[in-house]
Amino acid sequence: MSGSGRSNLVVAQSGGPTAVINNSLCGVIEQAKASSDIDRVYGARYGINGVLGNDFLDLTEESPETIAKLRTTPGSALGSCRRKVVEEDYENIIKVFKQRNVGYFIYIGGNDSMDTANVLYNMIRERNLDLRIIGIPKTIDNDLMYTDHCPGYGSAARYYAISLKEVGLDIETLPTPVSIFETMGRHTGWLAASTALAKESEEDAPHLIYVPERPFEFDRFKEDVRRVHDALGWVVVAVSEGLKTAAGEPVSISRNQANVDNFGHGLPGDVGSVLANTVTESLGMRARSEKPGLCGRSSIAHVSDTDREEAYRLGTMSIQHIVNGLSGYMMGLKRERESPYQCSIEQVDLGKVANIEKSLPDHFIGADSNWITRDFKAYARPLVGGKLPDYVRLLRR
Amino acid sequence: MSGSGRSNLVVAQSGGPTAVINNSLCGVIEQAKASSDIDRVYGARYGINGVLGNDFLDLTEESPETIAKLRTTPGSALGSCRRKVVEEDYENIIKVFKQRNVGYFIYIGGNDSMDTANVLYNMIRERNLDLRIIGIPKTIDNDLMYTDHCPGYGSAARYYAISLKEVGLDIETLPTPVSIFETMGRHTGWLAASTALAKESEEDAPHLIYVPERPFEFDRFKEDVRRVHDALGWVVVAVSEGLKTAAGEPVSISRNQANVDNFGHGLPGDVGSVLANTVTESLGMRARSEKPGLCGRSSIAHVSDTDREEAYRLGTMSIQHIVNGLSGYMMGLKRERESPYQCSIEQVDLGKVANIEKSLPDHFIGADSNWITRDFKAYARPLVGGKLPDYVRLLRR
Repeated sequence: MSGSGRSNLVVAQSGGPTAVINNSLCGVIEQAKASSDIDRVYGARYGINGVLGNDFLDLTEESPETIAKLRTTPGSALGSCRRKVVEEDYENIIKVFKQRNVGYFIYIGGNDSMDTANVLYNMIRERNLDLRIIGIPKTIDNDLMYTDHCPGYGSAARYYAISLKEVGLDIETLPTPVSIFETMGRHTGWLAASTALAKESEEDAPHLIYVPERPFEFDRFKEDVRRVHDALGWVVVAVSEGLKTAAGEPVSISRNQANVDNFGHGLPGDVGSVLANTVTESLGMRARSEKPGLCGRSSIAHVSDTDREEAYRLGTMSIQHIVNGLSGYMMGLKRERESPYQCSIEQVDLGKVANIEKSLPDHFIGADSNWITRDFKAYARPLVGGKLPDYVRLLRR
Repeated sequence: MSGSGRSNLVVAQSGGPTAVINNSLCGVIEQAKASSDIDRVYGARYGINGVLGNDFLDLTEESPETIAKLRTTPGSALGSCRRKVVEEDYENIIKVFKQRNVGYFIYIGGNDSMDTANVLYNMIRERNLDLRIIGIPKTIDNDLMYTDHCPGYGSAARYYAISLKEVGLDIETLPTPVSIFETMGRHTGWLAASTALAKESEEDAPHLIYVPERPFEFDRFKEDVRRVHDALGWVVVAVSEGLKTAAGEPVSISRNQANVDNFGHGLPGDVGSVLANTVTESLGMRARSEKPGLCGRSSIAHVSDTDREEAYRLGTMSIQHIVNGLSGYMMGLKRERESPYQCSIEQVDLGKVANIEKSLPDHFIGADSNWITRDFKAYARPLVGGKLPDYVRLLRR
C-alpha cells in the first residue's frame, strides 16, 4: 500500500439501519470518487462479513444517478451485519486489505462497530501499517458518547413525534380509551422521549412516557393511567421496548433462545402488548397497542432534513479527513449554537467511544419518572428538522 | 321544518377514522355553507352521541382557514363513536332534529353507520317527515358493498405498500431473518393485500401474504416461511390482524371481556407477535413483528392524492344531491375507466349496503392462499395515488 501513491478505499455499514445511513454512504462515495488520493471505492457486502469473505461491490463503477438515489433509500444499501469480530478475524481483515491495496477504511456503525474499528486501529498502529480508519456514527438509539447526537436519531425522533401526534388525534376523537405506543430503544429512552415533541398542551398525547433509565413499576403505571383517564377519558402512553423492572427484569422479554443477538444481547418482546393487557385486565378499560417497529427507522417520508444533511456531511468530511492523514477517530457532532442551531464536526478517539452507552441524563426525565422535561425538548427539537405538522382541532376550540 | 325555506344541516362522523375522513367533512361544510338552502351547519360531537346528547358544534362559525386545514388533519375532527343505536334512540334523534330545525343529515361512516342511517330513513319515510339523509362511506377496511372502493382505503393501502417496502429493505440488508408485518382488517384482507403493491420482483418483500378470507394453517405457514428462508435467507410476511383458523378461531384473540366493542365484535390480539413466536419456537429463526396499528390510518405523509380528492368530492356532492331532494342513499364510487383511472359517483340504497361485508373476491387471492394476484394489484394501484417511491439497490444489481 505504502509508496504506491493512490490506494483503494473500503466502506462498510454495520448494525441496524437508519433512515439516513445511506446519506453517509453517499457522501463517502461521492467524495472518494472525487479524491485524487483514492483509486477504487469498494463497498463491503454485509458489513465486516464482506471484508472477511472478500466480497465487495466496486462502487467506482456505479453511476452518479444511482449513488445520488442512496439519499432517499432506506435500509443499509451495502448490507449490514451484527457479527462479533473475534481475534483471528482481525488478521484476516488485514490480509484482505493488503491483497486489495486498501489504504482507507470507513466504518459506518454504532457502539459495537466503533469497538471493532478501535481494535483494528490499534493493531495497525502496533504493526505500523499504512491503513487509516475513520468511524462514522449512526444509530437511531442516540446512545453514543462524545457526540451531541447520532445521525439517524433525528429522523427516527421525527417519525415518533409525528406518528404519536397522529395516533393521539385518532384516539382522542374515537375513544378507544387507551393506546400504548411502543418505540424502539433497548437500553435507553432517547426514542421514547422523542414522542414528547408531539405534545403542545397538557391535554395532548402522549400523557405518559416511560423510559428504561427508570425502573418500571406496574402499580404506579396503573395508577398513572387511571388518573389520566379520569381526567380526560383517553390516554396515550409512550413506552420504550427496553423497559425494565426494579429487579432488572425486562417488562417483556422474548422467550426463545433464537431471539438473542450475536452479541448475546437479549431481545425485548412486545412491551406495548403486555402493558395493554395489563390495562385491560387490571383497570377493565379497552386498550390497544401500536408497535411501528422497523417502520420507525425506515420511513423516508419522515426523514429530518437536518439529520439527512448531517449524515451526508459526515460522509464527505470523513474522506477529506482520512486523505489528509486522520486515523483512529469517529466523526462526532458538536453543538455550536442553539438558535439558529448549528453543529460542527469533532474528532473523537475511537477508544473513548467504543462500548459505552449514553443514557438520558437525569434532567431530561421528569421527577415522577413518567414524563420528559422541557430541557429534552429544547435539545431534540432542532434534530427533527423542519416544522412539525400543524393539525386543526374542532373539538377543543 | 317544512315550509320554513332554509333549514339546518347536521353532519356526523362514526366508527374508526381514516386519514382522509376529514376531507369528506371539509367538502360537506364548504358546500353547505355555500348553499342557499342550508342555514346553520352543525357538527354532532362524537357521532350519534352528539345528536342524542344535543351536543353540537356550530361549524357555520368556523373560519374558512380552519375548515380548509381539515384536509390535512387525521382522526375524526368532530369526534366519533361506536354506539349501537337502539330503538328508543331513534325517537330521540328525531326529536333533537325537530328542535333544531334540521332538514338535512349527512352521516360519514362504515357498515354500522349505514345501518343506523337506513333505520332512521325508514322511520322518516313512514312518518312523512321533512328530513333527508345521505351516507358518505369511509373505511380503511374497504369492506362496503356496492361501491368500487371506500374513501380511506387508498391512503391506508398506500401506507402499507410503502411501509412494507421500506421494512423489506431494512430486513433484506440486515438479516434479522424474519419479520411478520401485521396490518389492520378484522374480517377482510383488503389491507393485508395492499402490501402486494410493494413487490416488483420475485425476491421483493412481501414474500407471503395471509388474509382472513382463507383459513390459516400453522403447519402450512411454517413450511412457507422455511421455503422462502431457504431460497433467500430472509422473509417478510404480511398478515391481517383478523386471521382465523379452519375452526373459525382467531389466530390470536385478546383475552379480556373489556376488549369487546360495543357491537359485540371481538377484538383481535397481536397476530404478528404470535406468528413471530411461532417462527422462533418452531423453526429456530430470529423473528420480529411490526404492528403499525393506528399509524396505518392516520399518517398524513402517506395520504393517496386520489383518495383525498375522492373523499372531498363525496362531501361536496352529497350536499349538492341532498339539497336537490336526494335521501336514503349512500354516495358510492363507480369505476368508469381503468386508464386513465376515473370514478363517478353512484347512488346506493342505504338498505342494500347496511350490514353486509365485502370480502376479497377469489380471483384476488393466489391459489396457494398465501399470495395476492395481479388482478388485485390492477384494481388497487390507481387507488393509492401517485408514484410509489423508487428505491435504489446496490446488493442486487
